[in-house]
Amino acid sequence: MHKLVLIRHGESTWNLENRFTGWTDVDLTPTGIAQAAAAGRLLKEGGYEFDVAYTSVLTRAIRTLHLALDEMDRLWLPVVKHWRLNERHYGALQGLNKAETAKQYGDEQVLVWRRSYDTPPPPLEPNDPRSERGDPRYAKLTPSDVPLTECLKDTVARVMPLWNESMAPAILAGKRLVVSAHGNSIRALVKYLDNISDDDIVGLNIPNGIPLVYELDASLKPIRHYYLGDAAAAAAAAAAVASQGKG
Amino acid sequence: MHKLVLIRHGESTWNLENRFTGWTDVDLTPTGIAQAAAAGRLLKEGGYEFDVAYTSVLTRAIRTLHLALDEMDRLWLPVVKHWRLNERHYGALQGLNKAETAKQYGDEQVLVWRRSYDTPPPPLEPNDPRSERGDPRYAKLTPSDVPLTECLKDTVARVMPLWNESMAPAILAGKRLVVSAHGNSIRALVKYLDNISDDDIVGLNIPNGIPLVYELDASLKPIRHYYLGDAAAAAAAAAAVASQGKG
Repeated sequence: MHKLVLIRHGESTWNLENRFTGWTDVDLTPTGIAQAAAAGRLLKEGGYEFDVAYTSVLTRAIRTLHLALDEMDRLWLPVVKHWRLNERHYGALQGLNKAETAKQYGDEQVLVWRRSYDTPPPPLEPNDPRSERGDPRYAKLTPSDVPLTECLKDTVARVMPLWNESMAPAILAGKRLVVSAHGNSIRALVKYLDNISDDDIVGLNIPNGIPLVYELDASLKPIRHYYLGDAAAAAAAAAAVASQGKG
Repeated sequence: MHKLVLIRHGESTWNLENRFTGWTDVDLTPTGIAQAAAAGRLLKEGGYEFDVAYTSVLTRAIRTLHLALDEMDRLWLPVVKHWRLNERHYGALQGLNKAETAKQYGDEQVLVWRRSYDTPPPPLEPNDPRSERGDPRYAKLTPSDVPLTECLKDTVARVMPLWNESMAPAILAGKRLVVSAHGNSIRALVKYLDNISDDDIVGLNIPNGIPLVYELDASLKPIRHYYLGDAAAAAAAAAAVASQGKG
């Protein structure tokens, strides 16, 4: 039996300001920092050990990982940082808050972008100052790999090659993985693992900073999954994410 | 022309307590944290960019790197953590302070261990609670690779394979490296690069938390090297290390 632990980063400054974040590289709030450390403590108390950690190339996920590993006295673990674990790209909505967005595009349209599996928000112009195409962390990628917008379907399509080519083989080789990532890159993994439908996955909310443990059989089929710590707290945190309603 | 940047970790708790540290995994002091952040600011102000970072598997070097990268908004850089960049192993002296050591072994003997290139201190017993052989971070190594003591010559011999097999090829492939390591693992690299004699290398002191820049030609021969920031501050910091006289 294999165990895989997924952690959504702690609260970010734009979670707090209720803005669409996507690939914008905002940092954790003090609450987010505390959530990340608490995640590390839960893992340490649970006796979890890992061989390798995966995270995105966004500061909020990397810092969450570092804070959790620090609590576990495991800063020395190898860490793979990969753009494929980044948050869903939110296109021209990045930086806007919910009220601004509703004003600009209408409530109904915003609901479609948030609730639909395959309708992306309007793309950023490639020369928009918010575009990540000039960011040095993506300089080695082919430009078309750096999205200008994504629906959740696009995020799933971009996360899965990393699972198939790196994460799943590592687990099958006996490595214990912890993954610090984002609401939608974790949705992508959960959708695949639990074979969740396109309609249902958009309604599944991942709370910030609470380790989600998957127990997988020899062929990486889930046996069961659960949040560490207080179940009611995890449910409340997920509900808070749902009511916030952001990607 | 290639640039290689070496940083000795910031002040550690056992630097401050004047104890032999070696492979013992002590953390930074508040001063050490400030030194690490200052190193990052110097690199940022100097416009330094990197493609990959190397560090040891010891917390004080990893944390120094993280703090420096954070100042540079480069937490997303890939990081290679390798035991071969660890500090010189200080054998049975690990944990002892200078006064205790002189009392136990005599001043003259202590001077030999500190100033000699090829005389190691007495080894730890493999079952000494201070031995690292049960530490999970070394679990994948062959036990004989985990030292019980080292002279500087041993440290050089253990650092160089990483240089030859990973760091030098990366530089030759055009990658810009920053290395956060330890007094003696940096001495090993400096000895090799500048072809410093066995006698002279033991007298060369690396200050904490000041980036040391090597400009290398196409065959990785040094053209020149210099500390970033205030030269007098770097010299004073190196002198402080020398008077402290610890490995």
